Amino acid sequence: MDEAKSRRRGETPSVLVVGSLALDDIETPFGAVSEAVGGAAYYAATAASLYAPVRVVAAVGTDFPKKHLDDLAGRGIDLEGVEIKEGLTFRWSGRYDNDMSRAQTLRTEVNVFADFRPKIPDSYRDSQYVFLANIDPELQLTVMDQLDGPKLVAADTMNFWISNKRDAVVEVLKRVDVSLLNDAELRQLCGIPGLVSAAKCVLDMGPKVAIIKKGEHGAVMFTRSSHFSAPSYPLEEVRDPTGAGDSFAGALMGYLASQDDVSETALRRAIVHGSVVASFAVADFGASRLERLRREEIASRYGKMKEIVSFEPE
Amino acid sequence: MDEAKSRRRGETPSVLVVGSLALDDIETPFGAVSEAVGGAAYYAATAASLYAPVRVVAAVGTDFPKKHLDDLAGRGIDLEGVEIKEGLTFRWSGRYDNDMSRAQTLRTEVNVFADFRPKIPDSYRDSQYVFLANIDPELQLTVMDQLDGPKLVAADTMNFWISNKRDAVVEVLKRVDVSLLNDAELRQLCGIPGLVSAAKCVLDMGPKVAIIKKGEHGAVMFTRSSHFSAPSYPLEEVRDPTGAGDSFAGALMGYLASQDDVSETALRRAIVHGSVVASFAVADFGASRLERLRREEIASRYGKMKEIVSFEPE
Repeated sequence: MDEAKSRRRGETPSVLVVGSLALDDIETPFGAVSEAVGGAAYYAATAASLYAPVRVVAAVGTDFPKKHLDDLAGRGIDLEGVEIKEGLTFRWSGRYDNDMSRAQTLRTEVNVFADFRPKIPDSYRDSQYVFLANIDPELQLTVMDQLDGPKLVAADTMNFWISNKRDAVVEVLKRVDVSLLNDAELRQLCGIPGLVSAAKCVLDMGPKVAIIKKGEHGAVMFTRSSHFSAPSYPLEEVRDPTGAGDSFAGALMGYLASQDDVSETALRRAIVHGSVVASFAVADFGASRLERLRREEIASRYGKMKEIVSFEPE
Repeated sequence: MDEAKSRRRGETPSVLVVGSLALDDIETPFGAVSEAVGGAAYYAATAASLYAPVRVVAAVGTDFPKKHLDDLAGRGIDLEGVEIKEGLTFRWSGRYDNDMSRAQTLRTEVNVFADFRPKIPDSYRDSQYVFLANIDPELQLTVMDQLDGPKLVAADTMNFWISNKRDAVVEVLKRVDVSLLNDAELRQLCGIPGLVSAAKCVLDMGPKVAIIKKGEHGAVMFTRSSHFSAPSYPLEEVRDPTGAGDSFAGALMGYLASQDDVSETALRRAIVHGSVVASFAVADFGASRLERLRREEIASRYGKMKEIVSFEPE
């Protein structure tokens, strides 16, 4: 992890994203949408595709509008790993109240995702950068079993799995390079209120890198020997936080793949890219702003992020 | 505010601190202390004295141990403005549970502080750097009436005054240069959950600078034209958060006075100094760690703060 890997000329490695594609009903104080395309894999793949080739493993029902798959394909995203199964697509419905930091889940219909067993197509097995989005940790383990020595695997999870399949979550953390959690999940997993001690507890489980997403408070990274803190990009208006964490993860992985570099320097840059892309993603409902995002817009906010944290030596 | 002021050679301006001196009973998961010296003015003056000459306006009862006044005087702090009144000193008793981010107040005995009417000694009227710690906002206003054109006035407050004397809090903000609030107070004052919009709402009330203390999430500064974000120094163990905000404010004001500079550049540095000094203050009960703090220790953590936020351009 510590040595900068030299970039292969002209051949950017792919990011493999394994997770859900979904149809979401979302209410926030700014409005509502129904049957918006979403799911962790949708946000993460769309974000990653701004930087690198992307491959997706997911399952949708026959009700999933073809338009969304066409949109993904239109970004050059490889959909060989997306199964279209008889039945309905995963549906999530949630509401954000005035305090936009936490979603209240109104309804979850797992539908065809209930018996999703991720099958990695042969053409995906050599994937170097792998993002295991929030799915059953036992499935995350089976994904890793199907890969030929990836360079970097990052895993997300959620409170439900930490409560109900804690051992499998711990087993996943034992095997991945990067743990991606939000601060509430981190505290739940470790039972420690202090973020620094909780991050150490996660590193003790196995990953070399613990990245903690803190919403409007930014993101932090801990390794055994270093600590990095990135602010969030200051936004006057957050219209819909859905997908912020997955957009962050997708951009992070996409950036690392684009550089083919997993050094500390690259990871710090990748976290800033993740924060910037997430700051766009939350500016409109569902993935609509993310879908319109251009690299020049990212570059401009990236530069502002440097100004935001800048201070002179003592 | 925007132009850097040239430093007067050999003559560091004083910081005037107006606030409470108190005796605190504190319980945290790490232990307990009783009758520990505290109060906003004690923390702020002690922190500021690491950088600049300090003057204090406060009131204590005849029970206040002379040792604590001797300790302050021993740091070169001018105590002419400290009244010793017949009766008991302000006493606060609080408990922190596992989540150390919020104190539960068990008891407040205002005692002699009930009729505290800050009188600024003639020798203090020329004070250039003024910290109005958390006291009745009507008293904060009378302090400003007694000053001869200070260069920078910063004011803190608390939820109680925002609830009970909102108009006076707003009047204070109209007249000060720097508003110092924690994130909960900011949201309460403005009734807006988003930090960025709430900060704008405070700037609209008058101050040129809004500094928001976010505990373990660091501190941010907003002006009309700029935004700065400083992380908190990462700590594995916070033993007692009491006085963190006042230590932050004292160090911030002390640093600005030591440079006699109220430019954006100086303010950013001052916020980092505030964060570093607060990180020491919370490492032991009451003010005991702060009292032992040395400038070399601050310099070392200041340097680490730069590493923590450092990332390469895109």
